[in-house]
Amino acid sequence: MQAIDSKTPWKTDKWYTSPWNFEPETRKNMTFSRNIKFHDVTLRDGEQQAGLIFDKDQKVALAEKLAELGIHRIEAGMPAVSPQDEAAIREIVKRDLGPEIWSFARCMKDDVKRSVDCGVKNVVLEVPTSGHLLQYAYKWTTEKAIETSIEATRFAHDNGLTVSFFTIDGSRADIDEYLHIVKTVAREGHMDELTIVDTFGGLNPHAIPFLVKSVREAVPNVPLGIHVHDDYGMGSAITVAALAAGVDIAHTSVSACGERAGNAAYEDVAMALLTLYGIDTGLKYEKIYPLAEYFRKMSGLRCRQSRGIIGEDINKIESGIVAAWYKNVEGIAPLELSPYLYSLTGHPDTEVVIGKMSGIPTVDIFLDKLGLKAKDEEQKLEIVRKMKEKAFEKMSLLTVGEFEEIARKVLG
Amino acid sequence: MQAIDSKTPWKTDKWYTSPWNFEPETRKNMTFSRNIKFHDVTLRDGEQQAGLIFDKDQKVALAEKLAELGIHRIEAGMPAVSPQDEAAIREIVKRDLGPEIWSFARCMKDDVKRSVDCGVKNVVLEVPTSGHLLQYAYKWTTEKAIETSIEATRFAHDNGLTVSFFTIDGSRADIDEYLHIVKTVAREGHMDELTIVDTFGGLNPHAIPFLVKSVREAVPNVPLGIHVHDDYGMGSAITVAALAAGVDIAHTSVSACGERAGNAAYEDVAMALLTLYGIDTGLKYEKIYPLAEYFRKMSGLRCRQSRGIIGEDINKIESGIVAAWYKNVEGIAPLELSPYLYSLTGHPDTEVVIGKMSGIPTVDIFLDKLGLKAKDEEQKLEIVRKMKEKAFEKMSLLTVGEFEEIARKVLG
Repeated sequence: MQAIDSKTPWKTDKWYTSPWNFEPETRKNMTFSRNIKFHDVTLRDGEQQAGLIFDKDQKVALAEKLAELGIHRIEAGMPAVSPQDEAAIREIVKRDLGPEIWSFARCMKDDVKRSVDCGVKNVVLEVPTSGHLLQYAYKWTTEKAIETSIEATRFAHDNGLTVSFFTIDGSRADIDEYLHIVKTVAREGHMDELTIVDTFGGLNPHAIPFLVKSVREAVPNVPLGIHVHDDYGMGSAITVAALAAGVDIAHTSVSACGERAGNAAYEDVAMALLTLYGIDTGLKYEKIYPLAEYFRKMSGLRCRQSRGIIGEDINKIESGIVAAWYKNVEGIAPLELSPYLYSLTGHPDTEVVIGKMSGIPTVDIFLDKLGLKAKDEEQKLEIVRKMKEKAFEKMSLLTVGEFEEIARKVLG
Repeated sequence: MQAIDSKTPWKTDKWYTSPWNFEPETRKNMTFSRNIKFHDVTLRDGEQQAGLIFDKDQKVALAEKLAELGIHRIEAGMPAVSPQDEAAIREIVKRDLGPEIWSFARCMKDDVKRSVDCGVKNVVLEVPTSGHLLQYAYKWTTEKAIETSIEATRFAHDNGLTVSFFTIDGSRADIDEYLHIVKTVAREGHMDELTIVDTFGGLNPHAIPFLVKSVREAVPNVPLGIHVHDDYGMGSAITVAALAAGVDIAHTSVSACGERAGNAAYEDVAMALLTLYGIDTGLKYEKIYPLAEYFRKMSGLRCRQSRGIIGEDINKIESGIVAAWYKNVEGIAPLELSPYLYSLTGHPDTEVVIGKMSGIPTVDIFLDKLGLKAKDEEQKLEIVRKMKEKAFEKMSLLTVGEFEEIARKVLG
């Protein structure tokens, strides 16, 4: 973890973002922790996404990839789910990959025991903390939730586990009641850290500073984590907002997979911290895109072709205007056309493709590549016309071969 | 446009989000406009996404769908791209669908003329406003950018067009230089509104309030728009931040399609405003999911199965814990398990599916559906075991038929 040491942290040799990000007025209320940790939930909450399923070998392989990436913590699974899950957790612990390995458990002695048996040293203990979820979904009283939490967190602590107290649906609880539960369990049970949980994705980013401040005041000496869902496509922004408000631990997943609407994507959070906030979390950034690709193949997770950071087409320029810029900046000012160099995340570099949006600059680029020359502007315009016709005909991009065929016909 | 009239705007009969969103301290700096407008860029910037291509009929059909949705403005295309684009814009204007129709043009008289010829009343006029993009990509001086802008915006105004001045790469410009350009063009040229443009996705959400305040001070009486890209998966959050800071017009696209890393998804922004900020922008929300599905089929745009609002699997519950909650809340408290009712966006309702994560609650639900009964808990546990085995065998969800086969075998 370190701050980017530069007078222009928005502009380095690897990225070029916005100076507004580093104006004193922008940063005046930021209180980033000096010890931010990624707590990866891909193997637990990630797999809870309907239809995602990993077997033991896949789980172990994914844990190894996460370790190579330099992720700080891996939530390896919930032993109660299946014998294969339990075996995967044991194996991941045994391999001693580097990251802290966490298990996930309900606030029940039996679940805690299973975690101990897996050999983990850390456990996330979940309990419902909103009165309405308790009433309707659990048919428990708030008192029962508190007692259960006190008992289970103590039991986990007595068994030598580090405890993250995970407060299900806390974001939708009555505010006073939530803070009361948290304070009581901190005092009478045991928590090594508290995870603020937006189980049903109902928090907005603006609520984060006051929420974090209020929780911090309720349990002043407890490290805080944030665990959100992506119901409004804002999971990453909310997570970054929480880190800026001083939260220490970010629960994230690979490519935003996760229960219901997914979790926050670690890719977004890590790259935003580095290039938009000036904070290096120490990940091996060049492994980000290869891991996203690997994960898509392994899991069947889909991804918008233009999805920031992890989309496969973000490097492709079709528009004629942008291709004209590319022609001018190529090899001279590569950061003019993207917020960071794609090589930073192991993504293929910027390239120009041929389509309906293309114009003369694209013709110039590909004629040059093919060692062809147009006699005059009229020939180039004719290629542009035929190129666009072809794109409409096939309703997709042209291959270089298709372009060459058109060009040779026009050039004669 | 209206504020949600409720003492608990986080909790209505259609959504249940977080009370923290409406705490006075959360809202103290919000200055939402009373006249927020969605400016849809799907047909222009959206189509600039590499590989996306719409023919004239598709563009007209999409404009009709956007009009049915109640979108306020449609940027129908750039006439210079192709004769088909020009024809699509003419046809969209002719149909008089309801939304304002905008054309997109470079700051060139010829582009403006083409827009006039298409019959539009409104034009987005783009000019580069960062010194480095001007230097490297355009090989222009700042003075040339200013003169060109003054000339083109005046020409458009003289031709009766409403002008949105669209400041390419403004977010990465030297701050003083950017404000100087904007002020000069407002004074000596003509702008009916100013669009703040984060062309290369380098803004962070925290920078927005100071940026908007600074621009507002530079051009006090000019309505402001925000146009961002989704390079860090935060396009929607940044757009909402800008609206909360008083920006009037949100440039958004369907499902975040757009050049390079896409634009902000109108789906996120509209649903967040409604359910997380208490602002009804008047869209026909029930058309959101059908439009997303239609657009995916038409364009080939992919989408994470769990992507908030528009993902097809957000309504599916696999996890045993959540299925247990579902069993208890079904028909009694449907908002316990999602931030809003999926029917609000025309998405299929919550349903339980059968997979490796399933446990006894799922067995209970499906035995009940099939009119079957287990003798005891041991039979149910046996079904759970076989269900999980089957899920591992096929590495995907089980069909109801597969579940039934297992159940009948176990029950004998």
